[in-house]
Amino acid sequence: MARLMFKKFIFTSGFGVSCFCGGIYFQRKFITNDIQKYPALPIFGTVSAATPFTPQISDTKTSMANRISQIMKYGFPSLDNVRSFEDYVLSYDRRNKVAHWVFEHLTPETVKRNSDVDRSKCEFKPDESIHPFFRSQNSDYKGSGYDRGHLAAAGNHKAHQKHVEETFFLSNIAPQVAVGFNRDYWNSLEKYVRKMTKVYKNVYCCTGPLYLPKKGSDGKNYVNYEVIGKNFVAVPTHFYKVIVGETDNGQLHMESYCLPNAPISSDTPLTSFMVPPESIERASGLLFFDNVSRGKLHKINGKSN
Amino acid sequence: MARLMFKKFIFTSGFGVSCFCGGIYFQRKFITNDIQKYPALPIFGTVSAATPFTPQISDTKTSMANRISQIMKYGFPSLDNVRSFEDYVLSYDRRNKVAHWVFEHLTPETVKRNSDVDRSKCEFKPDESIHPFFRSQNSDYKGSGYDRGHLAAAGNHKAHQKHVEETFFLSNIAPQVAVGFNRDYWNSLEKYVRKMTKVYKNVYCCTGPLYLPKKGSDGKNYVNYEVIGKNFVAVPTHFYKVIVGETDNGQLHMESYCLPNAPISSDTPLTSFMVPPESIERASGLLFFDNVSRGKLHKINGKSN
Repeated sequence: MARLMFKKFIFTSGFGVSCFCGGIYFQRKFITNDIQKYPALPIFGTVSAATPFTPQISDTKTSMANRISQIMKYGFPSLDNVRSFEDYVLSYDRRNKVAHWVFEHLTPETVKRNSDVDRSKCEFKPDESIHPFFRSQNSDYKGSGYDRGHLAAAGNHKAHQKHVEETFFLSNIAPQVAVGFNRDYWNSLEKYVRKMTKVYKNVYCCTGPLYLPKKGSDGKNYVNYEVIGKNFVAVPTHFYKVIVGETDNGQLHMESYCLPNAPISSDTPLTSFMVPPESIERASGLLFFDNVSRGKLHKINGKSN
Repeated sequence: MARLMFKKFIFTSGFGVSCFCGGIYFQRKFITNDIQKYPALPIFGTVSAATPFTPQISDTKTSMANRISQIMKYGFPSLDNVRSFEDYVLSYDRRNKVAHWVFEHLTPETVKRNSDVDRSKCEFKPDESIHPFFRSQNSDYKGSGYDRGHLAAAGNHKAHQKHVEETFFLSNIAPQVAVGFNRDYWNSLEKYVRKMTKVYKNVYCCTGPLYLPKKGSDGKNYVNYEVIGKNFVAVPTHFYKVIVGETDNGQLHMESYCLPNAPISSDTPLTSFMVPPESIERASGLLFFDNVSRGKLHKINGKSN
C-alpha cells in the first residue's frame, strides 16, 4: 500500500522527481558522504503528510529534523539553496551573497535566555557550507561603513550556546546601516517580534532583504544598490519581516513589514511600515506561509480578513 | 540490494531529502495532479547514475525525460525554479522576472530546419507555469523601447514547430537593446553557436542575464538596472553564453562570453568578449558544466587547459 502510494506520488510529481534528481546531483557534488563537513546542510523530517518514508536517522538528526519541520510548518518561501541550522532555516542568494529569507519559530520557551548562554563569545564567521565563489567574508564588510546585521536575530536563540552561535554565520548576515537602523529601529522590531510570544503560543517569523526599484529622473524605474567587498555583497535597499502569530485557539494573525535600510527615527510608529504581504511577495519572488491559504488567516496587519 | 542502496542514499543525503520534500511541497501547491495544465514543468530521466528508481512513465514522457537528461548531461547551473521544455531547460528568477539560465543541446540534426516549421506563426506568450505574481507579460515590454530577446534562440529549435514555439514563452525572453544588439551582434553570436555544430558533434549552450556592478562617482560599487512594465521585469546589464563543444574523440572545449546589453559594432571581434568562466559564475551565482571538473576540459577560450 505504502509502495503503491509512493509510486502514485512519483507518477504525479514531475517536480518532485526533478528536485529529487537535483538532490542527488547536489549531494554527489557537494556532500561527498561527509555531512559533518557541511553543518548547515538541511535535514528535514516529515514536512508534508505525503512524505512516503521515514528515514531511520540518529536521534540527534531526528530531533533536528523535527525542529526544522516545526519551523517550516507553514511552507517554504522558495527552495533555492536551503540551509538548515539547529534553530532556524535559510535560503541563500548566491548572486547577491545575502540570504533570500531566514525562517524562525519562536515560543515563550525558545526566547527565554539560558543563563549559560553568552553572546559575547560569538564571532561572525563565513558559512563553509556555501561554495567559496558565493561565500561572503568578514573582509567584505570591513571598512564598508555597514554593520553585519542579523536576519535571524541573535536574541531569538538564547536557549543554547550553539543556537546563538549559529546566527553568526555570515549567510545569516546582511549589510545594514548601523546608527538609526541595525542598532536602533531594527533592533526594536526584533524585540517586538520576541514580545509577540507573550500573546501568541507560536510565532513564525520570516526575514529577508529587498532590492526595490525607484523612479529615476528620466521617469523610468531602476533598481540600484551598493555592493561591498571583494565578493560584491549586496546592500539591500529594504528589509522585510512577515510574521504569523498562532493564538491558543488556533487563529493565525499575520503582520508584514517593509523597512528602508536607513536611519529611522525612534518615534516613527511601526504600523507605518506595514505593507500588504503580496507586495513583499511580488518584490522578493517569494511566497510566504504558502501552506495556509491567505483567506484562512484570521487577521492581516491587524485587520480581520 | 536496490533497497539497501536506496536507504544508504537517504542516510547520506540531507540535501537530497530536502529537495525531495521540497518537491512534494511544490507538487502539492502547484501541480494539483494535473500536469497538463503546466506544460513547462520539468520531467527528468536518469540524470544521475545514483537515481534509485525508474518511474514507469508514458513513452512521450520517457522520450522527453531522455531529451532533458541529454541537454543537462554536464550539470545544472542551479536548481531554482527549473522548467523543462521539449528542447531546452530553464531556471526562472522570480525576483527579476527573467530566467537565471537556459540550457540547450545542439547537434547538426537539431539545428537543421524542417521545411514544415514556420517561425512566423509563433507568438510571444506568458508562461502559465510561472505563478501570476512572477510572470512577465507582453504588456511589460510594450513601449519600453526594448526587444523581447530570446535566451534559447528560436533559430536553434527548427526541427519541430512545437520546439520553436516553446522558445516564445516569455520565461525564455529578456529585455534586450534592439538595434546593434538583439537584431545584430547578439544574433551573430547565436549564428556562431549554431555553426559550432559543424565542428563539434555535440554543442551545449548555457545563456543568461547578468546584473554587473559599476563604480559610482563616489568610488563605491553599485548594481543599477532598469525594470520595465507593471511586473518590473529586469533589464540585464549584460548577457552571458557559456558553451561546451564535444569533439568526435570526446574532447571538451569551453568558450565563455559576456556581452553588454548595448549596441555593439559589427566589426568588434567576438573574442574581445571572452571572459574566464569563473567570473561569470561569481557574478551570476551559478556553476557551469559542474559535472566535469574544470581541469578535464581540454580547452577554455581557445587555450589548452
